[in-house]
Amino acid sequence: MNHKMIIHTIGQVLLVEAALLLLPVFVSLLYAEWWGAGSLLISAAISLVCGAVLTLLTKKRKHSIYAKEGLIIVSLAWIAVSLVGALPFVISGAIPSYINALFETVSGFTTTGATILLDNQIESMGHGLLFWRSFTHWIGGMGVLVFVMAIISRTPDRTMNILRAEMPGPIVDKLVPRAKDTAKILYFIYIGLTLLLIILLLAGGMPLFDSVVYAMGTAGTGGFGIKADSLASYNHYLQWVITMFMLLFGVNFNIYYLILIRKFNQAFKSHEFWTYVCIFLVAATLVTVSIYPIYKNVGEAIRLSCFQVSSLLTTTGYSVADFTAWDAQLAKTLLIICMFIGGCAGSTAGGFKVSRLVILFKKVCNDLKKVLHPRATSVVKFEGKVVDDTVLSSLATYAAVYIMSFITILILLSLEANFSFEANFTAAASCFNNIGPIYDVASGTFTDYSALSKIVLIFAMLLGRLEIYPLLLTANPYTWIKK
Amino acid sequence: MNHKMIIHTIGQVLLVEAALLLLPVFVSLLYAEWWGAGSLLISAAISLVCGAVLTLLTKKRKHSIYAKEGLIIVSLAWIAVSLVGALPFVISGAIPSYINALFETVSGFTTTGATILLDNQIESMGHGLLFWRSFTHWIGGMGVLVFVMAIISRTPDRTMNILRAEMPGPIVDKLVPRAKDTAKILYFIYIGLTLLLIILLLAGGMPLFDSVVYAMGTAGTGGFGIKADSLASYNHYLQWVITMFMLLFGVNFNIYYLILIRKFNQAFKSHEFWTYVCIFLVAATLVTVSIYPIYKNVGEAIRLSCFQVSSLLTTTGYSVADFTAWDAQLAKTLLIICMFIGGCAGSTAGGFKVSRLVILFKKVCNDLKKVLHPRATSVVKFEGKVVDDTVLSSLATYAAVYIMSFITILILLSLEANFSFEANFTAAASCFNNIGPIYDVASGTFTDYSALSKIVLIFAMLLGRLEIYPLLLTANPYTWIKK
Repeated sequence: MNHKMIIHTIGQVLLVEAALLLLPVFVSLLYAEWWGAGSLLISAAISLVCGAVLTLLTKKRKHSIYAKEGLIIVSLAWIAVSLVGALPFVISGAIPSYINALFETVSGFTTTGATILLDNQIESMGHGLLFWRSFTHWIGGMGVLVFVMAIISRTPDRTMNILRAEMPGPIVDKLVPRAKDTAKILYFIYIGLTLLLIILLLAGGMPLFDSVVYAMGTAGTGGFGIKADSLASYNHYLQWVITMFMLLFGVNFNIYYLILIRKFNQAFKSHEFWTYVCIFLVAATLVTVSIYPIYKNVGEAIRLSCFQVSSLLTTTGYSVADFTAWDAQLAKTLLIICMFIGGCAGSTAGGFKVSRLVILFKKVCNDLKKVLHPRATSVVKFEGKVVDDTVLSSLATYAAVYIMSFITILILLSLEANFSFEANFTAAASCFNNIGPIYDVASGTFTDYSALSKIVLIFAMLLGRLEIYPLLLTANPYTWIKK
Repeated sequence: MNHKMIIHTIGQVLLVEAALLLLPVFVSLLYAEWWGAGSLLISAAISLVCGAVLTLLTKKRKHSIYAKEGLIIVSLAWIAVSLVGALPFVISGAIPSYINALFETVSGFTTTGATILLDNQIESMGHGLLFWRSFTHWIGGMGVLVFVMAIISRTPDRTMNILRAEMPGPIVDKLVPRAKDTAKILYFIYIGLTLLLIILLLAGGMPLFDSVVYAMGTAGTGGFGIKADSLASYNHYLQWVITMFMLLFGVNFNIYYLILIRKFNQAFKSHEFWTYVCIFLVAATLVTVSIYPIYKNVGEAIRLSCFQVSSLLTTTGYSVADFTAWDAQLAKTLLIICMFIGGCAGSTAGGFKVSRLVILFKKVCNDLKKVLHPRATSVVKFEGKVVDDTVLSSLATYAAVYIMSFITILILLSLEANFSFEANFTAAASCFNNIGPIYDVASGTFTDYSALSKIVLIFAMLLGRLEIYPLLLTANPYTWIKK
């Protein structure tokens, strides 16, 4: 374990955060919010000092990063940026409690969108801080893309199968040789799609600030907004645009890369993509049928249903109706299940991921077939390639760890006395899968949970975002013992 | 596929059922319930005729049963005995609707204990029918023991790994060479424990009829009773005896066999057994702490907690308090989780099974260890033996199928408009894991569910009891196509 290099990299990450904090400072100044600008600037300075100290204390040595170190760096980086990123909220007094501010920031960086702010608190917050809050989504989304694509999928270490099992499908690095180039291409697509969304929102009459904030929330599949009713008060065109883009940001980014280099055939051959589309269509249809009796209007039922299915399947969490209170069990149950499915691998979405579900399902069918035709040799294929047994086994292990983690979170949350089973179940599902909303709670936010539960949920969000293993590895004392 | 032999065996099973139906006829006569006796006798006659026709139509040929046929026979046998077993309720008029009667009977044979009868309907039913209702639990429990032990674990077919993965731990057939002997030993232990329980209940002042009924419900880890408040009105001694015996019937029966042949060392070395005990102790302690504020009495909290944890962990479903309405989230959540864990493999309990959980957990730890020490070779061991990769992989597949089945049931149930998420979730969990109670429903029973949902739940009970694969295999059209 190369401790110095880990610290050095965390230092560099904090330096980057200091630079990123200057953007919301600029927004604050634009709106003449001096106190907001000041608190952001102080935080940037703290980030700069911490980053400088860490990098200067540990000289950079030429040393290639092993997979293990890569994972630990990612975990610690996410924690470090959150710890510092929470400062502006505390310093400005917008969120006086540090635990609350940390919850909000982790929720931002993990692209969850779960909030402890009540409606009036959101609407009274300054533009600079609101921008920073949503900006964390966008940064987090970018981080995830590079994390899964550049770090996990590139590792040449054979033993990292356990992690690679999570990243099937066409992989950019097979097409582009260097990690840096992969990252550049992903950033390019990510920034391009975000800009396109901002333009489309502006075209629909959304104010510039709102457009930027909602575009960042959508791109990171986050869910933070600036209004009490999320997107309900915007016009239908804007709601449909967001519906579309939530879906687009839940697609494997490799497909966009393939489209960019005009390999359309390969792009649209993706099994995962079509399964994702099918899940969306089936769920949206059923939810429409289920909520029709409430709205008595086909058009409205379709719009609301498509928006909410898209929002929860891609783990964004925006809403255009109070869907958690829908008196329609089928819709409710399907939306909760969508929360667990999540988007495609290699996207900014959270959840279990469609590709994993497809491969698991194929493995199940394959195992059943073996009972029928003992002598037939059959293999599991995905995206045209044979998935070998080690990967299948690791994937199944991941599924088990995923369920066990969820149950552990649920048990810890159930120490809360004042929340129903439905509230705790959806709170755990929402944070662990990086979505955001919560059911059956009067305030509609996480504000009334105890500090202990908030810490549990903070870990849940990080666990979900980093796909469990990196955090487990970092938390394991054996990882840190020198041999 | 040997169709004739399958039909022949089903015929034989119905002949046995005809004989078994004579026992409740005798009970009816004892209590001078002529109409009850008549309906049971008519049902016995129908069972006899059907059985005779099926067996006579298909002559028995000497032919060994392959694993595939064995599984199909088991599935169809469970369905056939339920279809016929429901008749007495309909003929007597105790349960006029056949779907309701079938639900009740499947719930009996699968040792679930979920009921559609309201409290007053149970208490007004005749002794003969009540006896038959609980007798189905006892028969079902016996069937499961022989099914998992004698059929699955004995199959020499290499491809049946998928099923054998579900039956780890010490296996009787390694100790006894012939299947018939295995069955005899298991029956002996099962009957012995049941008789012991009846004696202990009688000693505590429970009337004979009640003792027999509750002993059969406990032995099969079923849950049908004869009182509106389940066991709440019996004295504390009786409640503790039932607590103890529910736990005992959730233990792998091989351990009793090992004790019988005085291999105490081997018996108490079982990893599964100790994990099971630990889960019970931890859950009971936490539930006690959680419900203490409600009862303000340590002794009472301990008694209620031990009883309910034992009841739900072993998937029995008896109650001594209205635990579904406890205002204690931790207790509620833990009890719901216990429903999924279930008892030990090779017992009459349902659920996922402790052994599977242990092995899955070890596999997860093993996979994580590999990331830390890439070159170290490590294997998963259970009960002193190495679990090979095929079994591990099959087990993980089973976990995936288990979750997928549960979610499918939950979605189908959510078509119901009038039930909450908590009600549907626990209804699905309760039937699929063969427990019985349901949360957040005014009547506390399944009576208000639609006919469609009852059919879904009937399949859920069968799926859970037969551990999914046999039923999937039977329902798969490819199974029936001749090559």
